[in-house]
Amino acid sequence: MRIGVLTAGGDCPGLNAVIRSVVHRALTGHGDEVIGFEDGFKGLLDGHYRPLDLNAVSGILARGGTILGSARLERNRLREAAENCGEIQRRYGIDVLIPIGGEGTLTASRMLSDAGMPVVGVPKTIDNDISETDRTFGFDTAVTVATEAIDRLKTTAESHQRVMVVEVMGRHAGWIALESGMAGGAHGICLPERPFQVEDLVKMVEERFARGKKFAVICVAEGAHPAEGSMEYRKGEIDQFGHERFQGIGNQLAAELERRLGKEAKPVILGHVQRGGVPTAYDRVLATRFGWHAVEAAHRGDFGKMTSLRGTDVAMVPLADAVTRLKTVPTDRMYEAESVF
Amino acid sequence: MRIGVLTAGGDCPGLNAVIRSVVHRALTGHGDEVIGFEDGFKGLLDGHYRPLDLNAVSGILARGGTILGSARLERNRLREAAENCGEIQRRYGIDVLIPIGGEGTLTASRMLSDAGMPVVGVPKTIDNDISETDRTFGFDTAVTVATEAIDRLKTTAESHQRVMVVEVMGRHAGWIALESGMAGGAHGICLPERPFQVEDLVKMVEERFARGKKFAVICVAEGAHPAEGSMEYRKGEIDQFGHERFQGIGNQLAAELERRLGKEAKPVILGHVQRGGVPTAYDRVLATRFGWHAVEAAHRGDFGKMTSLRGTDVAMVPLADAVTRLKTVPTDRMYEAESVF
Amino acid sequence: MRIGVLTAGGDCPGLNAVIRSVVHRALTGHGDEVIGFEDGFKGLLDGHYRPLDLNAVSGILARGGTILGSARLERNRLREAAENCGEIQRRYGIDVLIPIGGEGTLTASRMLSDAGMPVVGVPKTIDNDISETDRTFGFDTAVTVATEAIDRLKTTAESHQRVMVVEVMGRHAGWIALESGMAGGAHGICLPERPFQVEDLVKMVEERFARGKKFAVICVAEGAHPAEGSMEYRKGEIDQFGHERFQGIGNQLAAELERRLGKEAKPVILGHVQRGGVPTAYDRVLATRFGWHAVEAAHRGDFGKMTSLRGTDVAMVPLADAVTRLKTVPTDRMYEAESVF
Amino acid sequence: MRIGVLTAGGDCPGLNAVIRSVVHRALTGHGDEVIGFEDGFKGLLDGHYRPLDLNAVSGILARGGTILGSARLERNRLREAAENCGEIQRRYGIDVLIPIGGEGTLTASRMLSDAGMPVVGVPKTIDNDISETDRTFGFDTAVTVATEAIDRLKTTAESHQRVMVVEVMGRHAGWIALESGMAGGAHGICLPERPFQVEDLVKMVEERFARGKKFAVICVAEGAHPAEGSMEYRKGEIDQFGHERFQGIGNQLAAELERRLGKEAKPVILGHVQRGGVPTAYDRVLATRFGWHAVEAAHRGDFGKMTSLRGTDVAMVPLADAVTRLKTVPTDRMYEAESVF
Repeated sequence: MRIGVLTAGGDCPGLNAVIRSVVHRALTGHGDEVIGFEDGFKGLLDGHYRPLDLNAVSGILARGGTILGSARLERNRLREAAENCGEIQRRYGIDVLIPIGGEGTLTASRMLSDAGMPVVGVPKTIDNDISETDRTFGFDTAVTVATEAIDRLKTTAESHQRVMVVEVMGRHAGWIALESGMAGGAHGICLPERPFQVEDLVKMVEERFARGKKFAVICVAEGAHPAEGSMEYRKGEIDQFGHERFQGIGNQLAAELERRLGKEAKPVILGHVQRGGVPTAYDRVLATRFGWHAVEAAHRGDFGKMTSLRGTDVAMVPLADAVTRLKTVPTDRMYEAESVF
Repeated sequence: MRIGVLTAGGDCPGLNAVIRSVVHRALTGHGDEVIGFEDGFKGLLDGHYRPLDLNAVSGILARGGTILGSARLERNRLREAAENCGEIQRRYGIDVLIPIGGEGTLTASRMLSDAGMPVVGVPKTIDNDISETDRTFGFDTAVTVATEAIDRLKTTAESHQRVMVVEVMGRHAGWIALESGMAGGAHGICLPERPFQVEDLVKMVEERFARGKKFAVICVAEGAHPAEGSMEYRKGEIDQFGHERFQGIGNQLAAELERRLGKEAKPVILGHVQRGGVPTAYDRVLATRFGWHAVEAAHRGDFGKMTSLRGTDVAMVPLADAVTRLKTVPTDRMYEAESVF
Repeated sequence: MRIGVLTAGGDCPGLNAVIRSVVHRALTGHGDEVIGFEDGFKGLLDGHYRPLDLNAVSGILARGGTILGSARLERNRLREAAENCGEIQRRYGIDVLIPIGGEGTLTASRMLSDAGMPVVGVPKTIDNDISETDRTFGFDTAVTVATEAIDRLKTTAESHQRVMVVEVMGRHAGWIALESGMAGGAHGICLPERPFQVEDLVKMVEERFARGKKFAVICVAEGAHPAEGSMEYRKGEIDQFGHERFQGIGNQLAAELERRLGKEAKPVILGHVQRGGVPTAYDRVLATRFGWHAVEAAHRGDFGKMTSLRGTDVAMVPLADAVTRLKTVPTDRMYEAESVF
Repeated sequence: MRIGVLTAGGDCPGLNAVIRSVVHRALTGHGDEVIGFEDGFKGLLDGHYRPLDLNAVSGILARGGTILGSARLERNRLREAAENCGEIQRRYGIDVLIPIGGEGTLTASRMLSDAGMPVVGVPKTIDNDISETDRTFGFDTAVTVATEAIDRLKTTAESHQRVMVVEVMGRHAGWIALESGMAGGAHGICLPERPFQVEDLVKMVEERFARGKKFAVICVAEGAHPAEGSMEYRKGEIDQFGHERFQGIGNQLAAELERRLGKEAKPVILGHVQRGGVPTAYDRVLATRFGWHAVEAAHRGDFGKMTSLRGTDVAMVPLADAVTRLKTVPTDRMYEAESVF
């Protein structure tokens, strides 16, 4: 069998572990060939690829990033890919394509699959917001990085009687904020799934100070926002690459709390450190398992699906089911965390 | 409601997170009272306990160990506890007992439950070998510590063309060896579940050297052992506390490999560093959830059960089901890891 | 002997290690008494203090923050302290005061010393900018945190062909930027000590991309600034606590680079995570040594001085020498780092 | 200029950082050529080497081990090298040799230098026992790894009322034990420099238990040993590679303490994890500076010397001075640590 593999979308610790696992399983388990397309679907369309043998994936298990590179692709070029599926498959002589990516990538994979390409997807997102899988690799690393930051901020907040506002990733789903907030013992957690009342946060902080606990740490997802009328809130300027600049919720919330409380409130915007670097052991194991099962699925002809963690098992689920809706934080999980506002 | 909580058995990162969570949920969620028994069941029998309020559990979320202490209890004293269940419950005025512990503790908890004590158990083990739950807290921390060690050993093995044998915990179940071996990219993994042939390990190392990969890391569970006749193997001397001394499998396997290969093979016995210290974010979240759900179960009168992770949910399962058999590594998981011998 | 100890100024990993060391040495080495003033000089003036015995400092060696708290003091209250030195000393019955703090604290300590108070200072600053000592504790931790962040950002920058701008602490001295930039292998380092030409950074990035190294990481001290006319640069708004908000150099430089390069350039502002949390082993050792030597100096009557690292020795240097000028990065150190702009 | 570089002796985090720094400085600073000999002096004698350009050292700054490999060389082959110095130099066309290594390597380097080879040495040892330099890279990483282990063991010792004996590296000098013992707050520290009385350790533990501190952590250097008559003590069997097996001081001391105290005492032998893996930021900076200065020294013709840390400066010291005696822990440093036995 000849397998094509690519990584697309934002960075996510564990991508290299999947690539390595695909190559190991394919080569040593089945005697397959594997080629890797560079910079995601771009490499597939533009003919940039290289063969991946055992040496090519040596030493990458614990490395962040992706040796294949990643890039965004314009919508119309994706359509081009879907329309020329058969031709593309013949051009590279591949029997199956294994795209590793997030929601956008999986949606694209589904398009290709519908157009006749044999596809086995591998979901990745640090945000943990892909449906039909208990978890995705990358998420544990992001939560770990964010938790370490909260751990550090807590002692400094306590010693200096301060409020700290930590902004973590999560535009549409608050999983990172929820779990790092729980793990770090944040006193307030704000999620995209539930607009918060600034007044409630102010009250919580004041009650803490009244009880002699003269500090507070608030963990806020970048996609969280205040309830209507709760505080003045401007979305940031959008730059040429479609990203907000400077004025994220973390900065604004800290300024607002400082104003209302008359106490120092410092923002910390963790940003891309949550996306890069050495994956945790958990993420390496999950990524390795996903790679292994993707190859097995390919050999069974189990196409149009993606790998998925279900309890302790890795199962295959239809791409169509995975991409219809985002997996957001349900209300009972917020309730468990207790400090969600 | 008045809740008694205790921790028993070996150390496990996350114990304090459970205690804190029980106290938080009980006090702020329900207006309960909580008392903590010291040194496990011993404190329950001997009347050593203290009230736990919010201050008592402040700052312990990320701390290893247990603020309540832990100790082994002799079998006959446990029977004494079971026989005097009603009296004990009245003595402390507790409506429910929440024991946090491993297989032995859960078995004892079941005895108390059968004898009429309202019990909600919380499973803990770094070995991940308790049935009826996907995972236990402590395990992720142990795997993380072992993986960091393997990461470090790999570079030194490679630079000095050596074989490294890392012995990790796991007397009856090989989960830590399996997952840290996968996460660290160990070239050989030996589990208690499957006796290994030394000859196969020798062959693997020789093939690696022949291919120019002049090093190997082998991850061996302390409970792993060679297949009959595969190598001379002595169980270690047993000390007065029932523990083996010096001559664990890691040391013996390294010596045997050195003999057969004529190459340096160094043992590293990680030991108790896998049991202590700051729990990972994953373990803190799981421990916190278990504590929260234990209190909820107590309020629902859902006794004789323990908390359990099922996919993304925390469920309650009968203690009776959990303690009948150990959860060992199944064959298909060994197969996935590829390097299990 | 009766010793008063206090911590003042910004947070710094290792403060607790000094406190613990002072108490250990004083109590077990000399049979002294130690009292700790709360919230810096404020506690000294307002009479907030508590006795510190061995139990009070148990378990704090590795904890960030300060168990004594810290707070800023207005200038005029400091003058008040200096004028009433004798009275203050008598009020608490202290034979020596050990203030642990940065430049401001040491200057205040010198004032008190000049006014007749027996003082032994202990320097602390994560910025490493105090003269007359090779290093200060806290610095190694800050560099370690910043380096870990750069490590993480590098893999993500590489995989996604991006420029990353990491802003680290250092308002007047660029030590953290210099050492974390060297340790992380940043391609550009900008220091307060030398205004940079944006054009040079642009050229460096373009040359990298031309050579096929399609990413760059730039490490910029918060106090770094562009050379006149090099780019439009606004100082941030100052809030009620005297801090800049939002528009630090990291954000502005990233935006400017993005504009000029036409490539994504992401800012990461590490902020207070560099100040808090568990100190590194290096900082714990240095802090412990400083505490020990401060007590010895007190017993020798070696007042008006502060502890200082000189090669491998801890020496005592006059406070007057230490506070006259800031220790900034000399030109030959910039030259060594090679990537300083 | 044409520079030859090699790494010899035991593994040490930071070796790759030196190699990278030598190449960077030589190529970009001076337009030199660099070749790297494989497996230490062996490569020099047997003609195994490769050119090192910027790509060859890309991404190795933070990697443990050495890309050049390392191996022991028999004494007589070293003599062979010394005798053929001129011929060797001509064979490779090198103007200078930069050997990076420990005491053995530096002694060999001195032999070559005396025989006429232009040599600039770079000292490395995790043990920190080379004279004429304040510190060596690798040491900070070893201390950090050992301290993290002690941190983890402390919580488990406390919760389970145990004695933990941690054996760290240091055959002839106790620096790692001293500094990790101080940083981890070990209650007892045993160094090769001072034979210990087991009785004193027993007394210390018993006093702790009597005071209600029912645990103790003892940090013992592998080269530490009991005072004559203090306890039965066997040196371990020596294997074919000259290493002791199984019966190190850590294991024997734990067994002896268990016997005398009647309390559980567990040994943890950290071993090679202290030698491998990602170097700390401190070690990367020091290694990078050493590499830079080695190249500068070469260009100045400052031969027969090695790089050395002196306060905040990197200086050059004669190899002859560095290798005459080992830098062991002086008595005043033991005194500072307080818990040295």
